[in-house]
Amino acid sequence: MKKLINEPGDVVDEMLDGMTAAYPEELRRLDGTNVIVRADAPVDGEVAIVSGGGSGHEPTHAGYVGEGMLDGAAAGEVFTSPTADELSEMIQATDAGEGVLCVVKNYEGDVMNFETAAEMAEMEGVSEVAQVVVNDDVAVEDSLYTSGRRGVCGTILVHKAAGAAAHRGDDLEEVQRIAEKVIDNVGTMGTALTSCVTPEKGEPTFDLGEDEIELGIGIHGEPGTERVDMMPADDIAEELTNSVLDDLGLEDGQEVVTIVNGMGGTPQMELFVLNRKVQKLMDDHGLEVWDAMVGDYMTSLDMMGASITVCAVDDELKELLAYEADTPALKR
Amino acid sequence: MKKLINEPGDVVDEMLDGMTAAYPEELRRLDGTNVIVRADAPVDGEVAIVSGGGSGHEPTHAGYVGEGMLDGAAAGEVFTSPTADELSEMIQATDAGEGVLCVVKNYEGDVMNFETAAEMAEMEGVSEVAQVVVNDDVAVEDSLYTSGRRGVCGTILVHKAAGAAAHRGDDLEEVQRIAEKVIDNVGTMGTALTSCVTPEKGEPTFDLGEDEIELGIGIHGEPGTERVDMMPADDIAEELTNSVLDDLGLEDGQEVVTIVNGMGGTPQMELFVLNRKVQKLMDDHGLEVWDAMVGDYMTSLDMMGASITVCAVDDELKELLAYEADTPALKR
Repeated sequence: MKKLINEPGDVVDEMLDGMTAAYPEELRRLDGTNVIVRADAPVDGEVAIVSGGGSGHEPTHAGYVGEGMLDGAAAGEVFTSPTADELSEMIQATDAGEGVLCVVKNYEGDVMNFETAAEMAEMEGVSEVAQVVVNDDVAVEDSLYTSGRRGVCGTILVHKAAGAAAHRGDDLEEVQRIAEKVIDNVGTMGTALTSCVTPEKGEPTFDLGEDEIELGIGIHGEPGTERVDMMPADDIAEELTNSVLDDLGLEDGQEVVTIVNGMGGTPQMELFVLNRKVQKLMDDHGLEVWDAMVGDYMTSLDMMGASITVCAVDDELKELLAYEADTPALKR
Repeated sequence: MKKLINEPGDVVDEMLDGMTAAYPEELRRLDGTNVIVRADAPVDGEVAIVSGGGSGHEPTHAGYVGEGMLDGAAAGEVFTSPTADELSEMIQATDAGEGVLCVVKNYEGDVMNFETAAEMAEMEGVSEVAQVVVNDDVAVEDSLYTSGRRGVCGTILVHKAAGAAAHRGDDLEEVQRIAEKVIDNVGTMGTALTSCVTPEKGEPTFDLGEDEIELGIGIHGEPGTERVDMMPADDIAEELTNSVLDDLGLEDGQEVVTIVNGMGGTPQMELFVLNRKVQKLMDDHGLEVWDAMVGDYMTSLDMMGASITVCAVDDELKELLAYEADTPALKR
């Protein structure tokens, strides 16, 4: 498998340098770490929002660093949690004295390292560190790297809403409440048409036949719910959407945000074909789509596939999701 | 090859429906056509900017329809020119009486059909239709579908600058001058690590060995300049960048915009690894990077690979490229 990289062991380091080179006025890399923060961090008078996780999910998370979303993002090696040391440095570098909210995708290593980092940062003088754990993947309860449900693409809505709340001056308790409100109202399910290929291994992480797909795939190629024969896009959209809606149990007339998310190797053409059916399904279910997002938001290296996210929104969340944001990967 | 589609023959129609479903307030599809226009077209008091071409290059072109860029974009079938009839309908639907500028990528079918469409639209009462032809691909002179050089990713800078000029109220002659100024100052070269797969064929368009890449590739998989052994990303960046810079012949201290563009199947991680080296090369050549763009701007379905664009900019172009824009694929 060919990749546009140099040495596999250098890929995260070089990616981060390429990112700060693209956004020199917006992003800054903390010296000697794989942490990206806002160039103007810490931001006076605002609660800081930080996130992080293994690399390979770009633009997650560093692409969401900027005004109105994240203050910092820590990148681990590919599909590997960032260290507690680096997470602690990030928390310290972004804290402006108003406290820090860590938005953590539910993977055991991430949750553990963020918890340790929060304790370390508090010992170093950060006033208060709170944590929310995103677990929006409705596919599987307990998986290869996770107790409980995994955190996937719904996480970016947590970044957006919590970031907006922080930017308008809400305090830590309130920002955390907002983040948890999104988590309580969001569900996601994905599918893989092909495996991803990690730089180190250089070969597919798992085998998938030419005529089969995996439903409920994780963003590291962890097993999903089942392997089925390849289906038309409309049937795939229906399988994924119905699983999410079954989980959320929304009432008729509920307003929602939908995300059709590409996994990294999926052409945008196919995401829009999926979105067409997703919007019809929302209509069939009596749901009112307030915003329909389509694009690569949380990927799995070069995997072909997509995930579908649905989030119920009320006036409070709509205001925050629509709030101004200026990041490399999302502008409002 | 698996794709998230239904019937291959329906893919463009369904993609466009999925697109307007995602942006119902911003985009409108002209009834019975594959043309996307701004929902508020025609825009009073402004020259209209339109573009179009075969599908499979998303977000090109419909992703750039919106305030400050394009008023309309016509989608042909995959890798096939839109018809003159549809192009004429687009020109008529976007003209607000100030004239229309057609931004055409240099492919024989596109150029011919836009020329015919301009004549048809003028007969239907459009006051004036002008055309510029983008030919930024420095790789090959004459190719499978082209006399002269092909139009590739530099086209989006033409959309941006001309769209800004139109939005601030410049007349057609001035908007055309701006578009041609970008065309005179931009060069691009790409590489493919894998072939693309069209929905109709379902198999790779060309064969490329596991250890070889094609330099100078076209966005439809047309042959490039040479096949070479797979190289590290830094060497690929150097090959592509040097070809572009040799063509442009820029002076020391010149300000430039760079674009590292993904071809559709390339993870963002790899684009940033490339960008790191591109920025170093700009520095080595004594060029001042005013803006470094990284992302999927003009793709070739699911092709793995990337292109590198360099555009020399002066104060006039910088003002226009920085000007406010609000489109699905590019916001400023």
